[in-house]
Amino acid sequence: MLDIKKYAPMGWNSWDCYGAGVTEETVRKNAEFMSKNLLKYGWEYIVVDIQWAGPEAKTHEYIPFQELTMDEYGRLLPAENRFPSAAGGKGFKELADYVHSLGLKFGIHIMRGIPRRAVNLNLPVFGTSYTAKEIAEPNNVCEWNPDMYGLNPKHEGAKAYYDSIFALYKSWGVDFIKLDDICREMPRLADELELISDSLHSCGRDMVFSISPGPAVLEYSEFYKKNADMWRITDDFWDKWELLYAMFERAEKWSIHTGAGNWPDADMLPIGPILQDYDKANRTKFTEDEQITMMSLWSIFRSPLMIGGEMTGFDDFTMKLITNKEILKMHKNARHAHQVWRRKEDGGEHILWAAANAEGGYYAALFNAGELESEICLMLSEMEIYSSDVRVTELWNNEIKGIDMIEGDPAVYLKLKPHGAAVLDLREL
Amino acid sequence: MLDIKKYAPMGWNSWDCYGAGVTEETVRKNAEFMSKNLLKYGWEYIVVDIQWAGPEAKTHEYIPFQELTMDEYGRLLPAENRFPSAAGGKGFKELADYVHSLGLKFGIHIMRGIPRRAVNLNLPVFGTSYTAKEIAEPNNVCEWNPDMYGLNPKHEGAKAYYDSIFALYKSWGVDFIKLDDICREMPRLADELELISDSLHSCGRDMVFSISPGPAVLEYSEFYKKNADMWRITDDFWDKWELLYAMFERAEKWSIHTGAGNWPDADMLPIGPILQDYDKANRTKFTEDEQITMMSLWSIFRSPLMIGGEMTGFDDFTMKLITNKEILKMHKNARHAHQVWRRKEDGGEHILWAAANAEGGYYAALFNAGELESEICLMLSEMEIYSSDVRVTELWNNEIKGIDMIEGDPAVYLKLKPHGAAVLDLREL
Amino acid sequence: MLDIKKYAPMGWNSWDCYGAGVTEETVRKNAEFMSKNLLKYGWEYIVVDIQWAGPEAKTHEYIPFQELTMDEYGRLLPAENRFPSAAGGKGFKELADYVHSLGLKFGIHIMRGIPRRAVNLNLPVFGTSYTAKEIAEPNNVCEWNPDMYGLNPKHEGAKAYYDSIFALYKSWGVDFIKLDDICREMPRLADELELISDSLHSCGRDMVFSISPGPAVLEYSEFYKKNADMWRITDDFWDKWELLYAMFERAEKWSIHTGAGNWPDADMLPIGPILQDYDKANRTKFTEDEQITMMSLWSIFRSPLMIGGEMTGFDDFTMKLITNKEILKMHKNARHAHQVWRRKEDGGEHILWAAANAEGGYYAALFNAGELESEICLMLSEMEIYSSDVRVTELWNNEIKGIDMIEGDPAVYLKLKPHGAAVLDLREL
Amino acid sequence: MLDIKKYAPMGWNSWDCYGAGVTEETVRKNAEFMSKNLLKYGWEYIVVDIQWAGPEAKTHEYIPFQELTMDEYGRLLPAENRFPSAAGGKGFKELADYVHSLGLKFGIHIMRGIPRRAVNLNLPVFGTSYTAKEIAEPNNVCEWNPDMYGLNPKHEGAKAYYDSIFALYKSWGVDFIKLDDICREMPRLADELELISDSLHSCGRDMVFSISPGPAVLEYSEFYKKNADMWRITDDFWDKWELLYAMFERAEKWSIHTGAGNWPDADMLPIGPILQDYDKANRTKFTEDEQITMMSLWSIFRSPLMIGGEMTGFDDFTMKLITNKEILKMHKNARHAHQVWRRKEDGGEHILWAAANAEGGYYAALFNAGELESEICLMLSEMEIYSSDVRVTELWNNEIKGIDMIEGDPAVYLKLKPHGAAVLDLREL
Repeated sequence: MLDIKKYAPMGWNSWDCYGAGVTEETVRKNAEFMSKNLLKYGWEYIVVDIQWAGPEAKTHEYIPFQELTMDEYGRLLPAENRFPSAAGGKGFKELADYVHSLGLKFGIHIMRGIPRRAVNLNLPVFGTSYTAKEIAEPNNVCEWNPDMYGLNPKHEGAKAYYDSIFALYKSWGVDFIKLDDICREMPRLADELELISDSLHSCGRDMVFSISPGPAVLEYSEFYKKNADMWRITDDFWDKWELLYAMFERAEKWSIHTGAGNWPDADMLPIGPILQDYDKANRTKFTEDEQITMMSLWSIFRSPLMIGGEMTGFDDFTMKLITNKEILKMHKNARHAHQVWRRKEDGGEHILWAAANAEGGYYAALFNAGELESEICLMLSEMEIYSSDVRVTELWNNEIKGIDMIEGDPAVYLKLKPHGAAVLDLREL
Repeated sequence: MLDIKKYAPMGWNSWDCYGAGVTEETVRKNAEFMSKNLLKYGWEYIVVDIQWAGPEAKTHEYIPFQELTMDEYGRLLPAENRFPSAAGGKGFKELADYVHSLGLKFGIHIMRGIPRRAVNLNLPVFGTSYTAKEIAEPNNVCEWNPDMYGLNPKHEGAKAYYDSIFALYKSWGVDFIKLDDICREMPRLADELELISDSLHSCGRDMVFSISPGPAVLEYSEFYKKNADMWRITDDFWDKWELLYAMFERAEKWSIHTGAGNWPDADMLPIGPILQDYDKANRTKFTEDEQITMMSLWSIFRSPLMIGGEMTGFDDFTMKLITNKEILKMHKNARHAHQVWRRKEDGGEHILWAAANAEGGYYAALFNAGELESEICLMLSEMEIYSSDVRVTELWNNEIKGIDMIEGDPAVYLKLKPHGAAVLDLREL
Repeated sequence: MLDIKKYAPMGWNSWDCYGAGVTEETVRKNAEFMSKNLLKYGWEYIVVDIQWAGPEAKTHEYIPFQELTMDEYGRLLPAENRFPSAAGGKGFKELADYVHSLGLKFGIHIMRGIPRRAVNLNLPVFGTSYTAKEIAEPNNVCEWNPDMYGLNPKHEGAKAYYDSIFALYKSWGVDFIKLDDICREMPRLADELELISDSLHSCGRDMVFSISPGPAVLEYSEFYKKNADMWRITDDFWDKWELLYAMFERAEKWSIHTGAGNWPDADMLPIGPILQDYDKANRTKFTEDEQITMMSLWSIFRSPLMIGGEMTGFDDFTMKLITNKEILKMHKNARHAHQVWRRKEDGGEHILWAAANAEGGYYAALFNAGELESEICLMLSEMEIYSSDVRVTELWNNEIKGIDMIEGDPAVYLKLKPHGAAVLDLREL
Repeated sequence: MLDIKKYAPMGWNSWDCYGAGVTEETVRKNAEFMSKNLLKYGWEYIVVDIQWAGPEAKTHEYIPFQELTMDEYGRLLPAENRFPSAAGGKGFKELADYVHSLGLKFGIHIMRGIPRRAVNLNLPVFGTSYTAKEIAEPNNVCEWNPDMYGLNPKHEGAKAYYDSIFALYKSWGVDFIKLDDICREMPRLADELELISDSLHSCGRDMVFSISPGPAVLEYSEFYKKNADMWRITDDFWDKWELLYAMFERAEKWSIHTGAGNWPDADMLPIGPILQDYDKANRTKFTEDEQITMMSLWSIFRSPLMIGGEMTGFDDFTMKLITNKEILKMHKNARHAHQVWRRKEDGGEHILWAAANAEGGYYAALFNAGELESEICLMLSEMEIYSSDVRVTELWNNEIKGIDMIEGDPAVYLKLKPHGAAVLDLREL
């Protein structure tokens, strides 16, 4: 069994920091950093995001109509000016090998469909007598990216094309596929998702299958479980409180669908230096409390954890945020996490998430989504713990919390800053 | 702390069997039966359902415009022809005392508002100088029951009226209030629900507060938690497969809101003899498999369990259904239950519900909602159990299940009849 | 053929001025005024609005739970303290006779259904062995008025009850019925409307059948045509510009359904002294320009024209507004009126309504719904008039307008004040 | 003033018969036929429909990804294999000249946007330093046609491109533009429509501006009036009764927006031989009665009249259908036409449309949309004609109808076949 079945993936993705313009140098630098500093905490995936085939790609905006690099079968290849090791049609093979040599895993982003440029040139589909014009649908295009035509899922050449790209990725040694322009398009693109899933899962190499963009459609939860490993529950997530605030409700809805290889995905963590293409000094706008809130929610919810910032520029706080062993253990050990209640009280907006601990205890994550510091009193009975002989540890501060008795019932008091959080480990003694 | 905070209520309600026409004799008979045969399994509430103040009430249809029995303050009293011990204005006092003497608890149904007859007579509101016409809203009426006018929640006489009825119920010794015509009417009647909740909770006696009818409004989950103990998630539930089938989805949606005194309510169990007023020989139309499915789902979901049939007519199967100690223990011990997946496979429609066991293990409830017998293979990894050193017990048959290995991973095989279910207790050794 | 088939009714209704508290004295006073001053211009209906059976009724608020005056068959009678000539159960007979003696016609408002008081007393239905409780539906009540229970349209006693009230109204000499709580309730109350329509139309006396309140449901246009003479296209209309502004769109939608006995109804004209019960000095808040706009739109659209103010207090302007012979002729002669265009230009918001004149010419009503005075240039070609040999008369000022030529095409220039209007009569010579 | 302001256009369009594959030979043949046989009745436009630039185009299906013929500025040119006179880049100049020499007018279909092929080749925009890639929007594509990219209406090069194509069409002598992929896309494409309208209206040649496809958005009626001459109120109309039946409701909604240069468009008339590319013997499936119904509705509603069939194959019935002088006079003379009522009676479903006659009389079109022959009795009062001294002529049979008196009121009786119609001219004597 792959670890992906047990644990939601942890890694790094180039988008938040480099947009469509990531380069080989940057990928290698971050892979080296992860291998040296983060691998021991469980971080292992290095994922190259969108438009790596575009020689002109630079920032978070897509360059329309550029001449994407392809092979003679219309399969995209890395732009050689950005990925020198791809020279001579070698694709991502050398880069993947290098990432593997560091003990890590290697992933790439792809768009559904076939390059429009392959259609304009009417290239043949590998291993078939079909051509690109026969399998492409001219009016089936992505709403926000200019590169591809969607395929006709009923045409057998479409399956052949997808088979051909996964064969290529297998030859490169790819471990993780982030497929874009499909997740939220249910039911319109359900047939195409099923086709791609079949193709990927029959290619002969285990790859994590991640689909974007969100928000995923709740009514399709079982369909996502059947066809993918992780699916985005939100549109692109950035360092804005409104988006983090909204994630509580998204996570609440999806919480019962998490676990055992099913990973609703709250998107990358925009921490440390981000948006490097626009402004070299740009850092996340989230406060430290907000970052703790984000990391606590993502971890108890067991979202995939994909770092979005340039890791070599991380400061101490950021490193502590992503290397807290107990929090990362919760990310593996939490079971059946869900939001227990949400209340306005004492000037704050308090939210309680609870989870069973796979070892017989409980986790409680407490959030203050309000604008004022305020006090939370957690009755242990709200966790359905009816003993007072309980050891309670706050995991961010590694601090044992005392038990107070309120009208004969055990309780824990906590003060939470605005947009702040605490995570408790509770064990009956 | 009341047990209601720890455990969802278990009891009997007169509606499924006697409709609006229940009598004292019937209530006493069922209370005696429960005390003797079921109390030791945790069944304890005896609840008299709707229109007990109506002298003419007979069946499941409401008699419109009948002269409901009231006191001089417009507070409904039991119709004396149906509840002889209420003679002389004694209300339910004697009946409640008798139920208590059997070791049980006593509940009644009420409609929100004030009797239209009290308004027609313009009776005074107890302890105030207001009259019924001042607090009633003539256009605020129930859509399906003819008895009451709703109250103006902004009028201070409305609070006084509700205070006066709960004072009366306290004097009778009532333990359980089933308030009707309010639960699904959010947000229209949110103010009136809050008013009634405040009134009940300040009356000086602990009473379980149950609200009807459903379906409750999911977006109001926190509001229900704040104001009530249990709330109906469905319109009236009867012995039809379509309704049982639909309950899986209702329960799925509400599962994260269950526990610690919050009890989303899947409604009464229409088992054994029901609808006695229409046909003396009428029995539930559910098959035995369907009844096991119902009891399994209600129990792992921790719905309140309210028996709807005439208990003195229960056969062996029905008695076993409601006295399975392990199933009833799950009803108390399950934590964080939710639907894990739902799949069409092997000719069936399979559904897996999982819960943590408060003692460190897990429960799995497996359902076949399809029309053909079929086989389920439960990979233990789907329960996020990664050891094969696990003891698995099926609770309806009290049978230890063997562990098979499938490609190196432990699994349990089960055959399920159409509309059938199995419940597993899983413990790592 | 009744005039009602040819012309939309013109008259006076007590609501805008006296609300639920109108008295016989007021009705007589206004009837006398109309007979003397307005009958010659075509104004002829005198209509007593809502809750005339209530002894306590006073203002625009309904008195709930008051003891409405009824006969022994549950048929409402005028409250004798407010309508002295009704003493001894004579109903509106004497008042109607008096109105007729002045050359006018007499109308009353009714609510659908039977008085709740008749149901509480369980009175018999005239000429049948049914009683009120048998035909009333306890949960079928008006949302905004407290007086009645709706009837079960499938019960033959319901038809008998409606027959009995129209027989009574026939005996009084009623010419006009304004039926309330039904018009906008399609399709929910379609059966009840059809039942009442049948009953009224078979009573043996011609009465105009007007239904309220609006907004009427556009998809039911043919149903209204079949069952009623006039139907309200708006909720209550008052002297607020926003409501007048919104009427352009309502009238636009309904314009093709006007004529030949079908009269979509834009509601009463709140002019002169209104709301007399609250403030003796209260007068319409509409400016003179707004009143001209209102009268122009209602007239070209051929809405029924029902005066809402206390006529004895009308000033010169108001009298001119309602006695402009050419405008009132347009109200009879316009054919196929509709909105031609609506444009923002020259700082104004201009609207053109056009109609054929039954005598072979055309009418144009030009409105400025904007906030600034501005100029309209009406190309005659926009009226589909292609000759320049046309006589154009503005009807409010009785002024011949010159024809300008713009690039060889004939045009008329007009300046319109904010919220102002002009009405043109165009005839080819 | 152009005739287009006075009269809705009448002509022929190649789509119904030849789809995307029309040829010069066919156009010339139909133009000659029209000139000789139909011009004297007012038919004058000859319009070449979609994909005339495609060398491979053949039928009603679009050929995706074919190499459309263009000039060096990305402006489409007729495919020379289909339009020989276009050889050498001459475009439609010779064909337009020929059509003009026959006394007719010449029109073409265009798609909004720029050819994808022009973008793939990144051609320059005429008279500017912009290129196709700069003005095209890669994700802004038609949902059903593969040829074009939409333009960025905010880019000044977009206006320059549209200016360049209308300059070309002016040089060819085009009189009529049918712009596609825009009409129903309000408000999404409102900016692009406004841009194209400005460009066309400033090109220095009068061309009728027709926009497709429908259904047009009713709330945008004033916007259409401002920017176009005619707009489609329906998706493609074909020879199916369901589509004709539905047109009554579409026409009813749009009727008040017709006239004075505003022509809501019910689409082509699929009469005579149609769909010639599929089946040489294919003829319209409409019955003769249905064709009379269609022609009657289109004419009183004053829809543009565009013949869809191959005219050289018209039989006597078809010729009579389109050369009835009185019906075609109504198409010019009707004013303020609208649906008066729609009733189920006498086994039929009867519909009355009425219009004023610009000369002082009235038109009535009577339809039987039901499945059985049935009788209509038209009371003249329903036309708001109150004299019985009226001459009534049925225009399809040129027959004077007698006046019957019903209860003192004048009436005309007609028998209508299923799906049949009659048109009356009514004049007071």
